[in-house]
Amino acid sequence: MTKIILASKSIDRKEILRRCKVSFGTLTTDIDEEPYKTKIKDGFKLVKELAKQKVLKAKEELIAKEKKAIIIAADTIVMLQGQIIGKAKNNNQAFQILKSLQAETHDLITGVAITHTFFPKLIIDCDSTLVEFSPLSDDEIREYLKTNEWKGRAGAYSIMDKASFFIKSIKGSPSNVMGLPVHKLYQILKKEFNMNLFKY
Amino acid sequence: MTKIILASKSIDRKEILRRCKVSFGTLTTDIDEEPYKTKIKDGFKLVKELAKQKVLKAKEELIAKEKKAIIIAADTIVMLQGQIIGKAKNNNQAFQILKSLQAETHDLITGVAITHTFFPKLIIDCDSTLVEFSPLSDDEIREYLKTNEWKGRAGAYSIMDKASFFIKSIKGSPSNVMGLPVHKLYQILKKEFNMNLFKY
Repeated sequence: MTKIILASKSIDRKEILRRCKVSFGTLTTDIDEEPYKTKIKDGFKLVKELAKQKVLKAKEELIAKEKKAIIIAADTIVMLQGQIIGKAKNNNQAFQILKSLQAETHDLITGVAITHTFFPKLIIDCDSTLVEFSPLSDDEIREYLKTNEWKGRAGAYSIMDKASFFIKSIKGSPSNVMGLPVHKLYQILKKEFNMNLFKY
Repeated sequence: MTKIILASKSIDRKEILRRCKVSFGTLTTDIDEEPYKTKIKDGFKLVKELAKQKVLKAKEELIAKEKKAIIIAADTIVMLQGQIIGKAKNNNQAFQILKSLQAETHDLITGVAITHTFFPKLIIDCDSTLVEFSPLSDDEIREYLKTNEWKGRAGAYSIMDKASFFIKSIKGSPSNVMGLPVHKLYQILKKEFNMNLFKY
């Protein structure tokens, strides 16, 4: 059975696959995201391009090691009123991001790229979920920041943890909000790679 | 600080609070649900009544032990085209339930009841989330049943695990689908019990 390699350092993505009881390996790829972020202003195009770059980098490394694998990479951003919101660099930035998201609905977009080390097939797709936050006072935002859940996360929150306190509603795929649209992944692996994720 | 007691044996409810890093104790209450299920045909009324009965039973037990606590109980059902769907009793029933839910949208309803051992205040509320499944072949349903995730779960699935493969979209609170509407719980504890769940 071909091994699944998740080319991601996101703890949330690993956690999703773990909860789905899917066996997988991981590989961390480092690409310079800045040039893409400067050039691409369309959120959907950006996450797809970044997922593609990550998966191709991982493929290169795995081919060099002659490893046979299905490789999955992803990238997540938040979009609020047409503006792309990425990860906060510090506590203050995280505060500002959450202040802009509170009492509003934003779009959480994840791009996903899938390829195989031995075949040229490369599938790129994306999924988007609307997320509505309840109103948050500045004190509540500060309480949330203390949990450090904002670190390394697009939009400065994680749906899996204490952010549940203020996530009023979502519309779309729940796993997509966690950073990996498992529903799309399952369909792509079935149709394009003849793989059954239930067996992993 | 008043202790939180979750009056539930549901592993999913415990898991939600654990992931929210909330400290809590548990207590299992056994009430005979059948008379309520026979009498109450409205799904919203049923989950609220069952949550209430569970929380009152737990309150009785804790008062007898002179324990001070905030007690939370909940009950979850699935509703499809006006019909209440509870837990499957065996593999065949689970198959039939999933077969009826595939390629359809159902309503997942959770009732929640909250009280305090030392005060008469009793808050009962409910939340509802629409869940859309993608089409599933009989073989796919059988694959899913092998995971045993259907056991003890309303609608014979758990959003946290392999059901992610076929949950296309939801509309509403994601924690509600897991069996505990944490967003509502946070608001109720804040407004009605002057409690800040961030501190737990």
